[in-house]
Amino acid sequence: MSSIYNNIPLPTIRRMPGYLRVLQDFQKEQEEWITTTNFSSHLSLKPIQIRKDMVYTGITGTPRLGFEVDKLTQAIRKMLGWDNPSEAVLIGAGALGSALLGYKGFAAHGLKIVAPFDSNDSIVGNNIHGLVVQPMEKLEDLIVRMGISIGIITVPDDSGQSIADRLIAAGIQGIWNFSSVKLKVPSYIMVQKEDIASGLAVLSVKMKNEILP
Amino acid sequence: MSSIYNNIPLPTIRRMPGYLRVLQDFQKEQEEWITTTNFSSHLSLKPIQIRKDMVYTGITGTPRLGFEVDKLTQAIRKMLGWDNPSEAVLIGAGALGSALLGYKGFAAHGLKIVAPFDSNDSIVGNNIHGLVVQPMEKLEDLIVRMGISIGIITVPDDSGQSIADRLIAAGIQGIWNFSSVKLKVPSYIMVQKEDIASGLAVLSVKMKNEILP
Repeated sequence: MSSIYNNIPLPTIRRMPGYLRVLQDFQKEQEEWITTTNFSSHLSLKPIQIRKDMVYTGITGTPRLGFEVDKLTQAIRKMLGWDNPSEAVLIGAGALGSALLGYKGFAAHGLKIVAPFDSNDSIVGNNIHGLVVQPMEKLEDLIVRMGISIGIITVPDDSGQSIADRLIAAGIQGIWNFSSVKLKVPSYIMVQKEDIASGLAVLSVKMKNEILP
Repeated sequence: MSSIYNNIPLPTIRRMPGYLRVLQDFQKEQEEWITTTNFSSHLSLKPIQIRKDMVYTGITGTPRLGFEVDKLTQAIRKMLGWDNPSEAVLIGAGALGSALLGYKGFAAHGLKIVAPFDSNDSIVGNNIHGLVVQPMEKLEDLIVRMGISIGIITVPDDSGQSIADRLIAAGIQGIWNFSSVKLKVPSYIMVQKEDIASGLAVLSVKMKNEILP
């Protein structure tokens, strides 16, 4: 699918949720305008970086005033597809799964987790942040019936691939993978892998060298 | 502090834990050698990228055989400072904090969480994955007494800065920040910020466009 958003660099996309958070604070304060300097003082980013990122939103700043808060918010939400919330299932209602279920920011980020699933009978039926944990045998039926597009995998590594296979067979289009396995998926399935150890590696090297940006 | 590791690009550092995971699997299988192709088939990386990353480890491959598994493992662990485990305290023993406490990979990643803390009396005293949650008033004393170097912040956003201030005053050198606030810290304090929404933003745009790498 072609799109005007095709050429946005990944680091720019990664920074967009940060901009949105600052914009939300400005909306709460009923500010109409926001400047590059405003962004810079709330985020660890240089003004030149912010100006480059803003080009991808399609919103042009006004000299001395900056960007219109509401317009910029809408443009970024549209860029990320967060103007149309996606529904997701979450597989693996352990500690990490529960943490994600309790994360209040997802609604603002265009994601609605409609049901958690787990293979452990002692967890099934539990209420976690308002959602009841479902047994695994109901997975495919719920995905098909509700037309769910995203599957969040928070299971132990050894079952990650089999869960992914079931999600894909049921019609899921995107997978957010918190297990450390590399999933084998057809090319039309989008996968985003989260690696908790990557952040720790960066912190370790920063502390070792005390110089990295 | 000057170091031979000063010029390693951040993306290279982020990939190192992935290489280590594959190396550990090869060690378990008692394989002596590992090739770029081996890495490529276990990680979502191109061979040219892997070869560039390997240059920073200081380990030279042998034609047709590849890299020595043990030597490369040691070199990467040393590069990340994971040959000398760091001790950490974790502030905020809620769902996310508990998930991190339950993450078994940290020991292999040179991090040992010695104590979780929480301000909520109903959580203090609980045993989470073998560690007893401590009351906040014991924070400074424990950091000083044990010479802890890392603080992991998993508290709600509004208390992130005050926790960081207390950690720094007690002598912490590095902060792993899972709250979404930008922490104000002296320049000698290393901060690594984790933003769960960044990964979701990338997945959203990938699914919208179906073309990004």
